[in-house]
Amino acid sequence: MDSFFLNLLSIMLRDIKYGIKSSWIRRKEEILSKFDESLKEGLIDDRILPTLNLINGLPHYYTVSSCSGRIIILDLPEVGDKKSAIFRGRWHRCVEKNEVLNAISECTKEGWFILNPPIIHVISDDIINAEKILSIAIKCGFKRSGIKSIKRDKITVEINSTEMIETIISKNGYVLADDYYIITLVEYANKKFCRFQQKIERLNVRLYELYTIHD
Amino acid sequence: MDSFFLNLLSIMLRDIKYGIKSSWIRRKEEILSKFDESLKEGLIDDRILPTLNLINGLPHYYTVSSCSGRIIILDLPEVGDKKSAIFRGRWHRCVEKNEVLNAISECTKEGWFILNPPIIHVISDDIINAEKILSIAIKCGFKRSGIKSIKRDKITVEINSTEMIETIISKNGYVLADDYYIITLVEYANKKFCRFQQKIERLNVRLYELYTIHD
Repeated sequence: MDSFFLNLLSIMLRDIKYGIKSSWIRRKEEILSKFDESLKEGLIDDRILPTLNLINGLPHYYTVSSCSGRIIILDLPEVGDKKSAIFRGRWHRCVEKNEVLNAISECTKEGWFILNPPIIHVISDDIINAEKILSIAIKCGFKRSGIKSIKRDKITVEINSTEMIETIISKNGYVLADDYYIITLVEYANKKFCRFQQKIERLNVRLYELYTIHD
Repeated sequence: MDSFFLNLLSIMLRDIKYGIKSSWIRRKEEILSKFDESLKEGLIDDRILPTLNLINGLPHYYTVSSCSGRIIILDLPEVGDKKSAIFRGRWHRCVEKNEVLNAISECTKEGWFILNPPIIHVISDDIINAEKILSIAIKCGFKRSGIKSIKRDKITVEINSTEMIETIISKNGYVLADDYYIITLVEYANKKFCRFQQKIERLNVRLYELYTIHD
């Protein structure tokens, strides 16, 4: 009788596992199909594409959103109200002083100069695989990475880095600092931009190694 | 025979669970004893103390490090080399323009004005409890929170927020911006400081509610 129940339990567990697994594969296929559409429309940044392809090619993961890092000029109605913000400039690359000065001159409320590091949201099928990619990301220098939410077969891992610049630069249409200061900001933002590009390359190498292990 | 092995397995699992649990309690006691020493030496910031006490009073958690948020003037030898940095000013409170201007005038290499949000590292005994405190932190506005590492009975959760200012302010002893710009930076850093104090209070309320649920 014990043996009968053990067999029954084993069959039930297999079916539950199979059900979860097949719904996971279906969801991944749907997401990757939308990803391909975004790619065709040119909405995915070239700099982060190899990383996304490497992650999506692995069996336990898919990506849901990403940014390869950016320099932005944000016009904010007030501190923290990023929902009502207007982008006066947005670049996923190193910047030139003149384009930044132009974008700042367009700010009418609170103009902020911001450098955001790369960010990737990865969905993993279980906690062990989530921990694996998290640990790789942290070792590659993405020290602000973490697991953001845990659901049955949907663990969200954020890959994120620490390189930042965030400072107010204009108020009510009046630029608070002179050109020399803004040129220095541009110089340092570009330096930090190069640093996180190197981190992306390091991450690509480690992700590629996972393919060899899987073979 | 099946029944014999099931009983044996059940006893083994109970012993393993008991062993893990007792080592967890022992470790928590050790950490809290060190925490009490730090408290007597005045090393724990008053602003974050109620939060730490609330977390440490719950059965599934203990805290290992914390900062209630700070404004710092950092003198860096070069971008990203924070290990060799010298603190020219460090305040766990709102600041006055004169103390900031004095600290900036002491920088000899790259002077950075930085506002860091509050940060707490919490150890949880299992993944379910880790997810619970993570979810509470995110709902209270600590949107940069995440699970940082997963070990058997030691899950590290980082509670962290997004309010930041980080900008270069002097180079080779030369201050890059005028007093008016630095005064504006001080004004915005103080504003953001107030905002994350409100988040800490919100978190305290939610943590306190957990005690009612446990009763």
